[in-house]
Amino acid sequence: MNNKVIITVATTGGYTTKEHNPNVPLTPVEIADEVYKCYQAGAAIAHIHVRDEAGNPTMDFEKFKETVALIRAKCDIVINITTSGGTGFNDEERMKPFVELLPEIASYDCGTMNWQHTTVFENNPMFLEKLGKKMQEVNVKPEIEVFDPGMLYNALYYAKKGILKEPLHFQFVLGAPGGIAATVENLVYLKSLLPENATWSAFGIGKESTPILMTTLALGGHVRVGMEDNSYLFKGQLAESNVDFVERSKTLIKELGKEPATPEEARAILGLTKKV
Amino acid sequence: MNNKVIITVATTGGYTTKEHNPNVPLTPVEIADEVYKCYQAGAAIAHIHVRDEAGNPTMDFEKFKETVALIRAKCDIVINITTSGGTGFNDEERMKPFVELLPEIASYDCGTMNWQHTTVFENNPMFLEKLGKKMQEVNVKPEIEVFDPGMLYNALYYAKKGILKEPLHFQFVLGAPGGIAATVENLVYLKSLLPENATWSAFGIGKESTPILMTTLALGGHVRVGMEDNSYLFKGQLAESNVDFVERSKTLIKELGKEPATPEEARAILGLTKKV
Amino acid sequence: MNNKVIITVATTGGYTTKEHNPNVPLTPVEIADEVYKCYQAGAAIAHIHVRDEAGNPTMDFEKFKETVALIRAKCDIVINITTSGGTGFNDEERMKPFVELLPEIASYDCGTMNWQHTTVFENNPMFLEKLGKKMQEVNVKPEIEVFDPGMLYNALYYAKKGILKEPLHFQFVLGAPGGIAATVENLVYLKSLLPENATWSAFGIGKESTPILMTTLALGGHVRVGMEDNSYLFKGQLAESNVDFVERSKTLIKELGKEPATPEEARAILGLTKKV
Amino acid sequence: MNNKVIITVATTGGYTTKEHNPNVPLTPVEIADEVYKCYQAGAAIAHIHVRDEAGNPTMDFEKFKETVALIRAKCDIVINITTSGGTGFNDEERMKPFVELLPEIASYDCGTMNWQHTTVFENNPMFLEKLGKKMQEVNVKPEIEVFDPGMLYNALYYAKKGILKEPLHFQFVLGAPGGIAATVENLVYLKSLLPENATWSAFGIGKESTPILMTTLALGGHVRVGMEDNSYLFKGQLAESNVDFVERSKTLIKELGKEPATPEEARAILGLTKKV
Repeated sequence: MNNKVIITVATTGGYTTKEHNPNVPLTPVEIADEVYKCYQAGAAIAHIHVRDEAGNPTMDFEKFKETVALIRAKCDIVINITTSGGTGFNDEERMKPFVELLPEIASYDCGTMNWQHTTVFENNPMFLEKLGKKMQEVNVKPEIEVFDPGMLYNALYYAKKGILKEPLHFQFVLGAPGGIAATVENLVYLKSLLPENATWSAFGIGKESTPILMTTLALGGHVRVGMEDNSYLFKGQLAESNVDFVERSKTLIKELGKEPATPEEARAILGLTKKV
Repeated sequence: MNNKVIITVATTGGYTTKEHNPNVPLTPVEIADEVYKCYQAGAAIAHIHVRDEAGNPTMDFEKFKETVALIRAKCDIVINITTSGGTGFNDEERMKPFVELLPEIASYDCGTMNWQHTTVFENNPMFLEKLGKKMQEVNVKPEIEVFDPGMLYNALYYAKKGILKEPLHFQFVLGAPGGIAATVENLVYLKSLLPENATWSAFGIGKESTPILMTTLALGGHVRVGMEDNSYLFKGQLAESNVDFVERSKTLIKELGKEPATPEEARAILGLTKKV
Repeated sequence: MNNKVIITVATTGGYTTKEHNPNVPLTPVEIADEVYKCYQAGAAIAHIHVRDEAGNPTMDFEKFKETVALIRAKCDIVINITTSGGTGFNDEERMKPFVELLPEIASYDCGTMNWQHTTVFENNPMFLEKLGKKMQEVNVKPEIEVFDPGMLYNALYYAKKGILKEPLHFQFVLGAPGGIAATVENLVYLKSLLPENATWSAFGIGKESTPILMTTLALGGHVRVGMEDNSYLFKGQLAESNVDFVERSKTLIKELGKEPATPEEARAILGLTKKV
Repeated sequence: MNNKVIITVATTGGYTTKEHNPNVPLTPVEIADEVYKCYQAGAAIAHIHVRDEAGNPTMDFEKFKETVALIRAKCDIVINITTSGGTGFNDEERMKPFVELLPEIASYDCGTMNWQHTTVFENNPMFLEKLGKKMQEVNVKPEIEVFDPGMLYNALYYAKKGILKEPLHFQFVLGAPGGIAATVENLVYLKSLLPENATWSAFGIGKESTPILMTTLALGGHVRVGMEDNSYLFKGQLAESNVDFVERSKTLIKELGKEPATPEEARAILGLTKKV
């Protein structure tokens, strides 16, 4: 399995609009179609956000239900549901999609931070305890999102307390305003803090996404790509589809003499059980 | 000035109680007496928190006023007033002490984070903008407290926007649960992120405080010590006074062939103007 | 020029034999043909070693003369002549090829080290002083090869003494037995030691060459590839030509939204003057 | 044992002369007296170089024999004999002192390098193989001196080949011209390369010796001090005795809540057997 690299595609997110990139998929049908194309191109995991009718990020359960059902009807890509879609949702609303839909993975944003220099992205300790316990209860693997080293240290604390179960799986997010910047040095540093038996993935937001992608692969990590994090394929050139980013990852993975993991291989690497 | 090291003493903080260490000063009189002793021992800056009658941390203006007046009556130590004493205070209450009392420095906690795995230490973007502008308006130097790299990157953003004025002065806080851990590696890494013309200081909380103190000095930084961050002088041995920690710093500074900065020298190093 | 990356091809070296890879070019004609194909594929610099009739590395002047003449007859690729071909040659023999043939660049191995756990690769201080002065005299730019941080510090010393002229150009060599190992972390660390106005390139030897290539590009460095350092394109799959490695670099450079520098652009970036 | 720190004193070395510091001990009697005083002050290991009648470094066996006998007559300090005293000695002359006198430790300089920008400090692969085997044969523990990361990687290679026996013990030397410079960052980096079960010590040469000493202690390493590496206690103030440096270490060790290891404790930490 050492030569298999998991590509996660995050097609949509909560930030990118049709104004940023007209090709970003926003409705359940658009998202499911895009995920399926990415799956065909080599993505093993789909990280899912949904939008309301106005295109705003939401934790609306029905939107998740529809999106997930459409994806599952098409392929067996590993589903990873966000717990952080939009603002103004309470803890239960944030957890309901993974509790009801039982994806193999859901995101676990392991701390609170200022967000985009405009608001607070809140994941307070009470929520994190509740979230970790609920994920264990329903056997959904937490993807521990780390925007700053303190969040990784939080995860180690929760692992010690039994709220997170080892081996941990981390997703390093570099370049979100308010978090650690997207530099090669920061990525290497974050990796140095990992516990020994952890698995990990990383991505950079915006124009540094390709250098971070390359270094992540060079360091032996798994990768996340897609329009949640990046509208442009190159400076001044919008991506036509999330597939463009999957193809880029695949190109790099092959140059390393490795291969994209299939969904089944991703399940084996991350210790996931297919539940639905 | 290259061989002068600024010792900040943080005698009280918001956490340490008489149960933790019976020698922690809590009343204005106790704090002022302790600060004066630390000044005599070589501290150049006093970082001030106050407590209410029950010993809880507070932003109560009268307590700050009394404490600062008592200190100023005794010595010309540089005064650094917290903007983060206790919970439940609004933005104006957090700012009033420095606005009215005009210390040379006040703390600027440059982001929001989970705190002690129990609550959120909130310094949202709106507050940080307001705080930075107010500090410039009244000519109080921000001590930019950094608990995680993201906070340093926030500071660079605020500097670019003119909300913080360069040269910036940073205080690295290592070992607060929720923030970056207190390791030598983390300190060296944080230092690598500093802008070129910045000044900086650092401290570690709890049992790693002395290794962090030594490395800070080895790296050419200024230092903060005191019962806000540490009750024990050695494992199992409570400090009798904040002076113990000042003396330790002084011992280390002298072994390096350097000297503790006087308050006047600290003013010169940090570009402070004595206003009162 | 910020989006131009210099590809150096090292087609031959002193180590790789036809037994390692039957496609390695060894005669002047083979080398010049291979260099020309690499030039057409996007290489801007050719790092030249030659071999004697038995295939052993040599500083034989006639071989260099013939090889360089053949290359110059075909294209204007920047020529970089080794000063370290084979063992048993004296200082003058090591310098004669660049002194007589006036390439734009020659290698400057900035220290002595154990080599391959079998012998000593000697570049003693007397030689380094003589070499640096001679390169200035004939206006050949030193490519400072660094196999270990001490060699970079040596270069800073020689720059201070005027034996090397700033801006310096470094080539980091990772993975030569006896030198620093080929890890992403080591590369990032070496880069952190560079003086501000330096240019740099890097490569990894053997199986870690692609991760090092990717990270070098991610860090904004220039790159070296070729059979001097690597026989295999992938594990178990020999390269058919040095062009394979140039193509790999080009693929990666393009994914970053950059372009391979032309020889003229490489001259501009490195401050070279075409002399012949 | 976790709170015991081994102080090695290197009283003499091969470089420091009476002109550098009139208090440097050079004769067997002077060295033995100085070692004894350092032992009384808290040093657990004495690293021994000797000088000829003219004060030049030498591998002269009789000088070692006399020096070691005088020390052993006074105290049970752990003896560590250099294998690199002076130039012009053959392999057997370099090994004879430890082979005949059976100290618990001898130095193992794990590579070749340019030295002081004037000569080559040669420890070629043939010598290193012979030296490692001989040390195992006579049960003398190698202190692996590392002047650059390549030397650490050499050691890992020799450990794999069985020429060095694990657990390895390293001595990091920072600041020797030709090797890695004496910076806190370099020390932290070197430590990051250590194999897990290794023990280690470090020192900086010259004016950066105290910052390196502090950081070594902060990182949990053992320390080496003395006039071999440093003539000055402070800028412009010569050390009166090697004891001054031992006292400095002791002061720092105590501030950390630790204690200097006794010779017996040092033996336990390093797995040494007292043979004489």
